[in-house]
Amino acid sequence: MQRIPAHAGDALVAIATPALVVDLERFERNLERMAAATKGVRLRPHAKSHKCATIARLQLARGAVGICCQKTDEAAAFVEAGVRDVLVTNEVVEPAKIERLAALATYATIGVLVDSHAAVRTLSDAAVRANVVLDVYIEVDVGAHRCGVAPGDPAVALATDIARAPGLRFRGLQAYQGGAQHLRDPNARREAIAAAVADAKGTREAIVAAGIACDLVTGAGTGTWQHERDSGVYDELQPGSYLFMDADYGRNVADAEELRFEQSLYVLASVMSVPSAERAIVDAGLKAFAFDSGLPLVHERRGAEYVKASDEHGVLRIGAGAPPATLGERVWLVPGHCDPTVNLYDWIVAVRRGVVEAVWPIEARGALG
Amino acid sequence: MQRIPAHAGDALVAIATPALVVDLERFERNLERMAAATKGVRLRPHAKSHKCATIARLQLARGAVGICCQKTDEAAAFVEAGVRDVLVTNEVVEPAKIERLAALATYATIGVLVDSHAAVRTLSDAAVRANVVLDVYIEVDVGAHRCGVAPGDPAVALATDIARAPGLRFRGLQAYQGGAQHLRDPNARREAIAAAVADAKGTREAIVAAGIACDLVTGAGTGTWQHERDSGVYDELQPGSYLFMDADYGRNVADAEELRFEQSLYVLASVMSVPSAERAIVDAGLKAFAFDSGLPLVHERRGAEYVKASDEHGVLRIGAGAPPATLGERVWLVPGHCDPTVNLYDWIVAVRRGVVEAVWPIEARGALG
Repeated sequence: MQRIPAHAGDALVAIATPALVVDLERFERNLERMAAATKGVRLRPHAKSHKCATIARLQLARGAVGICCQKTDEAAAFVEAGVRDVLVTNEVVEPAKIERLAALATYATIGVLVDSHAAVRTLSDAAVRANVVLDVYIEVDVGAHRCGVAPGDPAVALATDIARAPGLRFRGLQAYQGGAQHLRDPNARREAIAAAVADAKGTREAIVAAGIACDLVTGAGTGTWQHERDSGVYDELQPGSYLFMDADYGRNVADAEELRFEQSLYVLASVMSVPSAERAIVDAGLKAFAFDSGLPLVHERRGAEYVKASDEHGVLRIGAGAPPATLGERVWLVPGHCDPTVNLYDWIVAVRRGVVEAVWPIEARGALG
Repeated sequence: MQRIPAHAGDALVAIATPALVVDLERFERNLERMAAATKGVRLRPHAKSHKCATIARLQLARGAVGICCQKTDEAAAFVEAGVRDVLVTNEVVEPAKIERLAALATYATIGVLVDSHAAVRTLSDAAVRANVVLDVYIEVDVGAHRCGVAPGDPAVALATDIARAPGLRFRGLQAYQGGAQHLRDPNARREAIAAAVADAKGTREAIVAAGIACDLVTGAGTGTWQHERDSGVYDELQPGSYLFMDADYGRNVADAEELRFEQSLYVLASVMSVPSAERAIVDAGLKAFAFDSGLPLVHERRGAEYVKASDEHGVLRIGAGAPPATLGERVWLVPGHCDPTVNLYDWIVAVRRGVVEAVWPIEARGALG
């Protein structure tokens, strides 16, 4: 487990590096901006990004109807921390995990996705045994080509099955177009969501035509949520990364109508070796960042670029004419991808104007199961 | 924190997925093979790979002289678990960390690297204050171009400085050629180590010529250790990954003289969705593997390939004619890169012939500081 890297009242220089740091002013502006912009629809932020009960409570206090999780263990961590409405935006098929989900439903409203008839039976049996009701959503593949049934008839057949199953309450459709979130061109994102909206709309109409209520269409992420919000079809939005942002979201080109969020999440690193004028080594490498979306970016440090990583080292190239790197120098780095980077840390250091204000535990770190 | 995924006596089917699993028979063969092959030199295995005190004890029981760590927090975790000889194969420059290292030296032999005169002073001051002796090694850049001083004169100057510094004992040279470990061509690895050996030898001779004892040359990794062992210059070897291996080490081409190690580390995953005959989704994605060295490989499951990951999903492509994927099916996956993958988990499930024999805590997981 990561040792606690700082305490309230510490100056920046007292934070043990590498540390995951959130700039509270930027973070709070992101928090308020999304809450304000989603007043007309349900906001159910995705907690897979932060895995932190303190942050979930800040979102709930600003009107979020509940949170999303991806894993049974994540849901358990948040329910145990007092969150009372969790949607697991994922299929759960292992019997032991379904049993845990049903047990959580004694204390909280628990939703889960299905994309198979087999899962409907297992979920129903577990809910009946635990004497609870599980909310069930059908995952519809609206273009991401990951999990989910095809739009239209397959969803109607599943809805029929769920509506008849004891212990289950059919709530609606999960229609998340994950593949659209990181399309660079704003028009490509808009078009992908237009197609997803059409699929979700048609599927809902087909289910309703079969005599089954389909109350909610839920989905959306940080890259596209405005389109889902304005679609007239999505009732609930699930963005997560908007609180933190990352280098990869930073590469999305925004158009004039898109609300911008600020980079609030950093890894604070220290220079531990300066072998030459052109090279400095920081203490944050492959165990301090997820590298699936590329290298971290150096934040506001002139002439330095993070060019290479090994397990515990990051190599900075120091450009000609840049200030020389010094031993112990602090470097702020923007993660390539926020979600799996957060999952490497047990603590978020919350900083305001150069002073540590809080250190938040990441309760659901490593909640893989 | 990851919930404990299994208990001793469990069958494979009872392991909660995704889980980090070690095949004990393969693992023990790797353990014994390295111990036997390094009888003539000191073996100080690198614990950054496993971060697990149970495994360190298995290595020490087979003759390892101590372990290597990369971070002060790792060293602390192992000392607190009873390991009495730890070399931090890294520069430590933050005063608070140096203070911790010195405190650990009350209970254990603690070594650390330097590549700057400034660090010598800080280490010396801290050792004197704590009334301990710290072992100090000069890191020499023998071709990896990461940290370290250049071979020859700069190392002599540093050695002179260390030899005079109260509280410090100059022990020798860290001469790790990290860049050579993953060169695919066995001749390229051999040549890179030949150059490193020449640099280490010349530097040691220059230090000795200056009247300073230079007892140990230490270094080497899983990709090259036989060359360092046979060099006549290296006294101590630091391989770590040999216990586990990974997909990336699997891509090294071995020549006839090289001792082979077996893949013993896996992530056990489950199929959670089968949207089509060609596609199955497993529950292990970007938070279950490090992706810096590529995608995981599917182990012994005909016709399946891991082709894409998102945070909590892995997409398997199921080939024509392969057995159809089924919901709940277990899939064994070989991580692309073992060290940062292990760092995602809090537990290693140790399995022998289909039964869980032990569940080892990964004490130094997240020990970043």
